[in-house]
Amino acid sequence: MVTTKHIAVSNHQIILATLPDGTLEEGHFTSACGAVPVPRPGEIVVRTLIISVDAANRTWMDVETYRPRLVAGEVMAGYGLCEVVDANGTSLPEGTIVFCDAGWQEYAAVPAADATPLAVDGELTHQISVHGVSGMAAYFGITEVGAVAPGETVVVSAAAGATGHLAGQIARIRGARVVGIAGSDEKNLMLESYLGFDATVNHRSETFRADLKAACPKGIDVYFDNVGGRILETVLRRMNQNGRVVCCGSVTHYTYDPESRLAEVVPGALISRRIRMEGFIVLDWMDRWPFASQVMNGWLADGRLLPLENPYDGLDSAPRALLGLLAGENAGKTMVRLTR
Amino acid sequence: MVTTKHIAVSNHQIILATLPDGTLEEGHFTSACGAVPVPRPGEIVVRTLIISVDAANRTWMDVETYRPRLVAGEVMAGYGLCEVVDANGTSLPEGTIVFCDAGWQEYAAVPAADATPLAVDGELTHQISVHGVSGMAAYFGITEVGAVAPGETVVVSAAAGATGHLAGQIARIRGARVVGIAGSDEKNLMLESYLGFDATVNHRSETFRADLKAACPKGIDVYFDNVGGRILETVLRRMNQNGRVVCCGSVTHYTYDPESRLAEVVPGALISRRIRMEGFIVLDWMDRWPFASQVMNGWLADGRLLPLENPYDGLDSAPRALLGLLAGENAGKTMVRLTR
Repeated sequence: MVTTKHIAVSNHQIILATLPDGTLEEGHFTSACGAVPVPRPGEIVVRTLIISVDAANRTWMDVETYRPRLVAGEVMAGYGLCEVVDANGTSLPEGTIVFCDAGWQEYAAVPAADATPLAVDGELTHQISVHGVSGMAAYFGITEVGAVAPGETVVVSAAAGATGHLAGQIARIRGARVVGIAGSDEKNLMLESYLGFDATVNHRSETFRADLKAACPKGIDVYFDNVGGRILETVLRRMNQNGRVVCCGSVTHYTYDPESRLAEVVPGALISRRIRMEGFIVLDWMDRWPFASQVMNGWLADGRLLPLENPYDGLDSAPRALLGLLAGENAGKTMVRLTR
Repeated sequence: MVTTKHIAVSNHQIILATLPDGTLEEGHFTSACGAVPVPRPGEIVVRTLIISVDAANRTWMDVETYRPRLVAGEVMAGYGLCEVVDANGTSLPEGTIVFCDAGWQEYAAVPAADATPLAVDGELTHQISVHGVSGMAAYFGITEVGAVAPGETVVVSAAAGATGHLAGQIARIRGARVVGIAGSDEKNLMLESYLGFDATVNHRSETFRADLKAACPKGIDVYFDNVGGRILETVLRRMNQNGRVVCCGSVTHYTYDPESRLAEVVPGALISRRIRMEGFIVLDWMDRWPFASQVMNGWLADGRLLPLENPYDGLDSAPRALLGLLAGENAGKTMVRLTR
């Protein structure tokens, strides 16, 4: 655990220099050296330990979401695990480990009210994977939004991803039959042999539609959607009556696909098969995160839940980490560990 | 009220001769003269009084829905108001008015278990409009699926249609601000001046997007969707946090629109604004239809709910009635009255 109070004179930062118009590239970011911020009343100063790299980071560049759209020329936004280095008279003592949007920088001043103190129990990285946004999205998406029941067939896309690999495992723990969709046979092999997925399908295969049908002989009851687009369309065509689509993420919404035939199944299939599609933001469930953490700690302890983590080292690797995530290169939770 | 027991020797029928591949035309139907059916055990014979003409009739030709896809060469399927003319030893006495899928024909044998006896109170046509599938879809769509609350902004598409004009009025009765979308200025004038809609937008206008925005200055909380397609996409872009889309009908799902940009907002907007899209089939709520009828009878009595009806006369007019409905020519509930 890091507890040394240490505030440097410089603050290494990654700036989102320009907003992407299409594909995001390393050139959209620049490295900068700013000042360690001086907190205003009610703010604390934190030092970043681990940055959580999420597909949502990309979405923030395009549109207003649950936060305003990002602005070019500012420090790249991002949630992470931080240590309080200046309590500034607030109720968060120095040394406290907090989760907050400190951005891609070594030091940040953030409102104490926006920093969530964490009782770290176990691996620090698990706070970003299982106990972070990805794990909580998997937990509440499967148990609450999807309301997965024993015996149901659950399909998870981006199944090797930060959220997907946990969502699939949680659905299995609830007694469902779980089919993963990923973009490489290597990932699929790992999902089946290491994480216990019942079946997998490669969405890059030319026989994807037929493969999915074969993998789901009883149709699909719950689809945990991390991608949208053509895969969403394909899955919707195989869904059962009273099916549920948990809209957790989308990597396709900002790229217009002229081949999309989504309008053929939305809303048609929703109506004829009484399907519910529901988006959710895991931050809305924050009051129940401690409960979910406790449940998942039990599964970690008895070996039923295996988290995959994909750490990068050093702040300058953050743009590369995000690009790798968006390109689908990674399995598990992508994160950036900072060291001084 | 029709109570005379009378079984003719011939049975005038409309046959769905061929399944449409694209636009439905009168040529897909033929008129035929069949035999009056002989009931099997558990079946009753009914005489058709009024046929309910619904957009769903068209959907049944394309895909399996809550019923198997229609088969070419058979009597066109369709729900309607009928009189029992042969009880055949069942618990439905002759003279009972029932609602059932008798098809487009004068006489049908239907399982007694599939015929819903109606306590007709008021106009017989109201059983098809307010108290039929259209009215029930409006009632349960607004009150249950959409859960419309006072002060919310509700948008209804196909607002002059059988379901839409009732959905809008029910939302207003619940205290919402209601904006109708229809395809002609004449319909919109009628919605505002006669049915009390707060505002209306013409989706054929070149300024549709801007008009919708202007008509909904506080965004949109609930969208009662009767059409899908481009209008659904446009409305989704204006929806508020925690918005709900009631997927009631779709006239566009069987025509592939290469211009569709639905994949830009589904699932992206659903996630970022926590939107729930939910399809429903009003037949699932049948146990609560009597309650809804009672509530709506109260609104009819005090003049707060004004049903629009669009009757055609004679069985041979049924194909024309459906084509008119699909072309958006009509306002209110389209139905065919049979007379001998």
